[in-house]
Amino acid sequence: MRILLTNDDGIGAPGIKALGKALANWAEIFVVAPEEERSATGHGITVHKPLRVEKVTLFGPNVHSWAINGTPTDCVKLAVEMLLDKPPNLIVSGINKGPNLATDVLYSGTVSAAIEGVIYGFPSVAVSVAGWENLEYQVAAKFSRDLCEQIYQSHLAPDTLLNVNVPNIVPDKIKGIQVTKLGSRRYQNIFDKREDPRGRVYYWMAGEVKDLDAGHGTDIWAIKNGYISVTPIHFDLTKHQLIKEVNDWISRVQVPSAD
Amino acid sequence: MRILLTNDDGIGAPGIKALGKALANWAEIFVVAPEEERSATGHGITVHKPLRVEKVTLFGPNVHSWAINGTPTDCVKLAVEMLLDKPPNLIVSGINKGPNLATDVLYSGTVSAAIEGVIYGFPSVAVSVAGWENLEYQVAAKFSRDLCEQIYQSHLAPDTLLNVNVPNIVPDKIKGIQVTKLGSRRYQNIFDKREDPRGRVYYWMAGEVKDLDAGHGTDIWAIKNGYISVTPIHFDLTKHQLIKEVNDWISRVQVPSAD
Repeated sequence: MRILLTNDDGIGAPGIKALGKALANWAEIFVVAPEEERSATGHGITVHKPLRVEKVTLFGPNVHSWAINGTPTDCVKLAVEMLLDKPPNLIVSGINKGPNLATDVLYSGTVSAAIEGVIYGFPSVAVSVAGWENLEYQVAAKFSRDLCEQIYQSHLAPDTLLNVNVPNIVPDKIKGIQVTKLGSRRYQNIFDKREDPRGRVYYWMAGEVKDLDAGHGTDIWAIKNGYISVTPIHFDLTKHQLIKEVNDWISRVQVPSAD
Repeated sequence: MRILLTNDDGIGAPGIKALGKALANWAEIFVVAPEEERSATGHGITVHKPLRVEKVTLFGPNVHSWAINGTPTDCVKLAVEMLLDKPPNLIVSGINKGPNLATDVLYSGTVSAAIEGVIYGFPSVAVSVAGWENLEYQVAAKFSRDLCEQIYQSHLAPDTLLNVNVPNIVPDKIKGIQVTKLGSRRYQNIFDKREDPRGRVYYWMAGEVKDLDAGHGTDIWAIKNGYISVTPIHFDLTKHQLIKEVNDWISRVQVPSAD
């Protein structure tokens, strides 16, 4: 059993360390992760500057580990194409510091790394702890381990990953597991406008979350109500049911002519 | 009619200039684009450093234009939240230098900006010229203008954008318009391993495209056969049809206990 670990909080983050520990006695672990925090990088890749790879020993002498000056997606590509001598059986991205719920997944480096894993054809999981302070990674790490065993037995459908969010509460308070759909959330009042000491304006992106769909069955609902949320994710962005409708009016658009 | 333009090739790129020119006599144009090339940044946002905004006059004295030290998604957020005095009626991202076909859309800053536009609730379009050399932006610009007029009349469904690829051929050779689904492609042998003058290894991401699904009805097929490709895109990443299946086996995964 060979598992590739990555994340977007950086190779030194506590979440990936907890994951490595929990999985180490079950599988051979390989770690390829950004050298520093690269959260909110979405599915970005590095094509305009060279990538550097540094072998590190953060996970002990028996775990092959590399730090990369790139995005989580870069890490998966480098791991699969250049660094691992044999393909992994599973890819796990995380454990992320902070939730990856609803529309968050579009911006998330953690989820994008797992999407990249699935593009390569490997079963992949993204794991996050849904809290911001006093984070408890052990619960999520234990759950990830059991989930990985089950995925390995149950054979996830191709082109699918699982996005896991674990509530940041003590184990006794966790009510169970819910398989969910993504909710919908938007950020509002997102920029904090400031002036630097030279009088030049700059903006910090921040903002408050506004949940637009947090109803029963969504990942947001599960987390708010003390459940571990597991969402199957795909990446076929075609809106198939709209092809006919667009076809109905597209003929009214002119094909440019030579004049 | 108010149109927000953005791109990922940078505010000085020829594609966005051609777009601005083609749309200017029909609509009031606002340009908010990255100060330099930010292609392949996916849906990344800038949360760990401040964003700077610089007013520029690249599009003439009558067009409000701002250059941003961030990603295309940052640009849309800043435009809507801070820079435009009234919301736009449409958002157009492009014209991108190079195709955004199939799996490319996941990595594309151009498409991500249009997705962000739709998240805000504005009809949005991403436009690319499917070529790499001697690019002809006029055809794509003319088509974009006509398409925008039609979108404005036809009311695109919410949570949907259109991803447009225009073949890089003379207008007379364009066979028509096809409404397509995304094909599937993967990049192979993607890293070029080199040594710097100090003997340290670095990697360039490159690679050749391998089309896995380029059949009739896909965007890849349309471009290869001389058609303008228009793909309706959504961003609901839930794989709804798998919720039941995962539910069937998830109960075998243990909820972590306190021990």
